[in-house]
Amino acid sequence: MNQSETTHTHVLTSVDVVVFTLVEGVLSVVLAQRARAPFAGVWALPGGYIHADEDADAQASAARVLRTKAGIENAYLEQLATFTGPARDPRGWSVAIAYCGLIPQERLPAPRAGLKIVPVNAPGQLPFDHGLILQAALARVRSKSQYSSLPVHFFAETFTLPQLQQVYEGILGEPLNKVSFRRKMDELGMLEPVPGEMLAGGAHRPAQLHRVRPAFRQQLALSVRGL
Amino acid sequence: MNQSETTHTHVLTSVDVVVFTLVEGVLSVVLAQRARAPFAGVWALPGGYIHADEDADAQASAARVLRTKAGIENAYLEQLATFTGPARDPRGWSVAIAYCGLIPQERLPAPRAGLKIVPVNAPGQLPFDHGLILQAALARVRSKSQYSSLPVHFFAETFTLPQLQQVYEGILGEPLNKVSFRRKMDELGMLEPVPGEMLAGGAHRPAQLHRVRPAFRQQLALSVRGL
Repeated sequence: MNQSETTHTHVLTSVDVVVFTLVEGVLSVVLAQRARAPFAGVWALPGGYIHADEDADAQASAARVLRTKAGIENAYLEQLATFTGPARDPRGWSVAIAYCGLIPQERLPAPRAGLKIVPVNAPGQLPFDHGLILQAALARVRSKSQYSSLPVHFFAETFTLPQLQQVYEGILGEPLNKVSFRRKMDELGMLEPVPGEMLAGGAHRPAQLHRVRPAFRQQLALSVRGL
Repeated sequence: MNQSETTHTHVLTSVDVVVFTLVEGVLSVVLAQRARAPFAGVWALPGGYIHADEDADAQASAARVLRTKAGIENAYLEQLATFTGPARDPRGWSVAIAYCGLIPQERLPAPRAGLKIVPVNAPGQLPFDHGLILQAALARVRSKSQYSSLPVHFFAETFTLPQLQQVYEGILGEPLNKVSFRRKMDELGMLEPVPGEMLAGGAHRPAQLHRVRPAFRQQLALSVRGL
């Protein structure tokens, strides 16, 4: 046992990233086509090894993987959970630190070979335990949307309250009461009106545009009670 | 880049475990004295390398580390978060998958050299980023105690509702209203009375003993609203 206590057995360490976006109100996930074995040519969550020589931490690894393998920059990222064991990767005992990301559709790169955006309900057959990781990320995003400002990261700039409510409804998969939705947003205290900016609304009267207060652009506003 | 994409750079992979128990109502944490460098002789969270040749996953590594380094078996365990980077361990770029554990005091091993239980408010100076890991575990336990059955894992067998309320109060650090506490426990649906078992209560009338329903011994009951 002294031997095994001081010897570090070989473990593969990687990150996998579940990036969500909204495509016409439908919660969707980014997949990248694998360039190499195992599963060469198969669509998978963007992932890759930790590079100890260049990454400041695993979140930096996740950001690098997104940039180099999917052309995605500036997604909101948070750690989801770590998936481990001898069987999840045919190359050996592996640790995959999974991250969950959100990005507005307009910040995604132009369509390119090897990258696709699919509805979360129809991701196709994913390799490794990526199906499990996707389900865990979905559960996280739905649960956090009940209690936090997470969904604002689907917007690049400004939005109206009806647009924001629609996004919450798209994620939660159910209609929300307008009055209690607005009370909840007030309670979270993360939004501010953009002075003088209104969105002309066709048949409706113009709606005030809002944006996220600077303090909440990198961290979430949390609420004690759900929607 | 092709080179670095296919080469796996060396990363140390370990688990660290924050085991909580209640000592006379005070939330406390298990520390083990490190046998080897770095930080030989220093009190730290029990931790150790993943053993790819014997561990089924990282939670099995955490259970093995607790058993071999602290003599602790059968703690309730859940994954907390993963701590990473080049600076947290002097031996190199490292990944520490942190677990949070709960155990009733009576299931802890007999006092022994190299093991101590200290109040969470006075853990002393901890090596690595163990202070940070402890704070993250505390935040998790306090938050989950608001919304779930987590605190029942501080009891070995049976308990009265006043005893359980006291435990919740000890973790949350504030008194709770008896009526709403009992409503919440009903809502969680995780408890059952033990037929015919009462606890004689000195000046008080005897109180019904409860236990956790079998379905909730390995998984948590969750509530949508906090206490």
